[in-house]
Amino acid sequence: MHLAHGDVETPSFMPVGTAATVKALTPADLRDAGAQIVLANTYHLWLRPGLETIANAGGLHRFMAWDRPILTDSGGFQIFSLESRRKLDDDGVTFASHLDGSEHRFTPESVVAFQQNIGSDVAMVLDVCVKLPASREQLEEAVRLTTSWARRSAAAPTRAGTLLFGIVQSGLDRHLRERSARQLVELGFAGYAIGGLSVGETRAEMDATARATAALLPAEKPRYLMGVGTVRDLIAAIDCGVDVFDSVYPTRCGRNGRAMTHDGELNIFNAAFTRDASPLDPKCDCSTCATYTRAYLAHLFRAKEMLGPRLLSYHNVYVVNALMRDARAAIEAGGWESFRLARGG
Amino acid sequence: MHLAHGDVETPSFMPVGTAATVKALTPADLRDAGAQIVLANTYHLWLRPGLETIANAGGLHRFMAWDRPILTDSGGFQIFSLESRRKLDDDGVTFASHLDGSEHRFTPESVVAFQQNIGSDVAMVLDVCVKLPASREQLEEAVRLTTSWARRSAAAPTRAGTLLFGIVQSGLDRHLRERSARQLVELGFAGYAIGGLSVGETRAEMDATARATAALLPAEKPRYLMGVGTVRDLIAAIDCGVDVFDSVYPTRCGRNGRAMTHDGELNIFNAAFTRDASPLDPKCDCSTCATYTRAYLAHLFRAKEMLGPRLLSYHNVYVVNALMRDARAAIEAGGWESFRLARGG
Repeated sequence: MHLAHGDVETPSFMPVGTAATVKALTPADLRDAGAQIVLANTYHLWLRPGLETIANAGGLHRFMAWDRPILTDSGGFQIFSLESRRKLDDDGVTFASHLDGSEHRFTPESVVAFQQNIGSDVAMVLDVCVKLPASREQLEEAVRLTTSWARRSAAAPTRAGTLLFGIVQSGLDRHLRERSARQLVELGFAGYAIGGLSVGETRAEMDATARATAALLPAEKPRYLMGVGTVRDLIAAIDCGVDVFDSVYPTRCGRNGRAMTHDGELNIFNAAFTRDASPLDPKCDCSTCATYTRAYLAHLFRAKEMLGPRLLSYHNVYVVNALMRDARAAIEAGGWESFRLARGG
Repeated sequence: MHLAHGDVETPSFMPVGTAATVKALTPADLRDAGAQIVLANTYHLWLRPGLETIANAGGLHRFMAWDRPILTDSGGFQIFSLESRRKLDDDGVTFASHLDGSEHRFTPESVVAFQQNIGSDVAMVLDVCVKLPASREQLEEAVRLTTSWARRSAAAPTRAGTLLFGIVQSGLDRHLRERSARQLVELGFAGYAIGGLSVGETRAEMDATARATAALLPAEKPRYLMGVGTVRDLIAAIDCGVDVFDSVYPTRCGRNGRAMTHDGELNIFNAAFTRDASPLDPKCDCSTCATYTRAYLAHLFRAKEMLGPRLLSYHNVYVVNALMRDARAAIEAGGWESFRLARGG
């Protein structure tokens, strides 16, 4: 992907910096960990610190001191999670802030404008997310409104430097997915996301839906599977032709003492680790693994020392980015299939 | 100070890494921030992770991945803070762990042995701390026992690489301080600490007692004022001839949003900072000040993002170490007095 703040090689993973910070990590950490692009969130940034503060700083990149690309999610997912605190109409959605109850309104146009004004490299259209299970009527209505909002988003004033991606919605219904994808592709976005997955469905359901949806999207445009971040899910999605991913999984696990390794995941609270002088992941070459033992990391977590979450978050982000780097190399060398099998895909 | 893991230029400030970690910071951060030596605590390390884990790692330096000097406090201060959870006798003190209530016993010998066994560069003798206000009888008894324990500590088996420092006790009573200092100096320690200050007395009382006590200690040996970490107190103590300091102040303030700057302290929660595009301390050349604005740091603290405490802790440790560096340069150039006045001392 050729973006305003640099190129992103695909497949690529975006660490999540919801509130203009990837939790516990600095931009220098993220560069060291191999991140090429991070994700931030319109819903959270709109409420705090707000447009004025970010614009005053000269945009989101300068505000958070990250000079590589940023993709901002539209906030659709967050708003529809508010349930009782939001009111949907054809024109947009009115909601109460989870921070202070203050009332705000998102329209397709205001959400695109916000993302352009803070200088996102990639802006996502405002989409309608339906909580599953949902009736056929609810899903049809969500697709109708998502397409209608996508059309308005595509017609909104544009600003150089920000690409706009559409988001395919509608749960696990393949016919509706197909309709949603076809309608969005007609609108000619710079890239397409597959939304509404990784929200509790089975892995088989997710894989099948992601594969079917990816196949409906133009291969020459970036395809982005939202919310995916485990090694297994990432490998399955790359196999479906997906190019970009985001998930809080690596950093959330890192804060909770769960390490992603080349040989599966491990829980640092496991009693055996308190005396284990080996590195977290002997096959990893990140600075956490080069510097500290499992025994020390286990001690930090048991003592509730914040260095623990910091070091494990760094490691997990490094591991996922290394997986992407290795996947790119394997694809380039024509060895994807053997790579996929070797990594348990 | 010439120590097993390197030389320490004085005056020098020791960031506090109670539980084998200076909160939120890595050893690389500490080196970048100019730290030459850190402090860890016998009481905490004894209870968690315990001697076996640290010895198994090859000592405290390797356990926490810090290859410069470490001074360990004896835990006297912590144990006497336990009050109802400890029982003092002439031979030592028995106490219940604040973690799990398990019973432990410290003697002068066991505390020296622990510090030697984990490889401390500087071990502190077990001292008797009295809560103020205290009667003359209580203070006399504390001095008697502190000296008795210091004598036993000095006679304990020694191990190459660990220096032993005595600790002058007894509140604000100058006659008793003099007695304590004289008795300890007779024992011939490698250095001497001034304990029992910075615990709630007035600044005038602290300054007068520190000055009088420092004057009783041999100038050719390191003099260490325990628990001091504000810019004002550090400058006053250097003026008394003190060489070494420790305090949680810079890191605790950092976690709470309080920044130490060249022009006094500031609270990052102050509303004005939410729109302030200037660095935290325009006169500081640390990476936090070079990279981020006050507005961004204010946002991180308001959003309860752990990057905030991390960045402010780093800055504060940097500021205190820069003060030490500048003080050393001023003393060497014969300009201490003008430096002291310029920095508000």
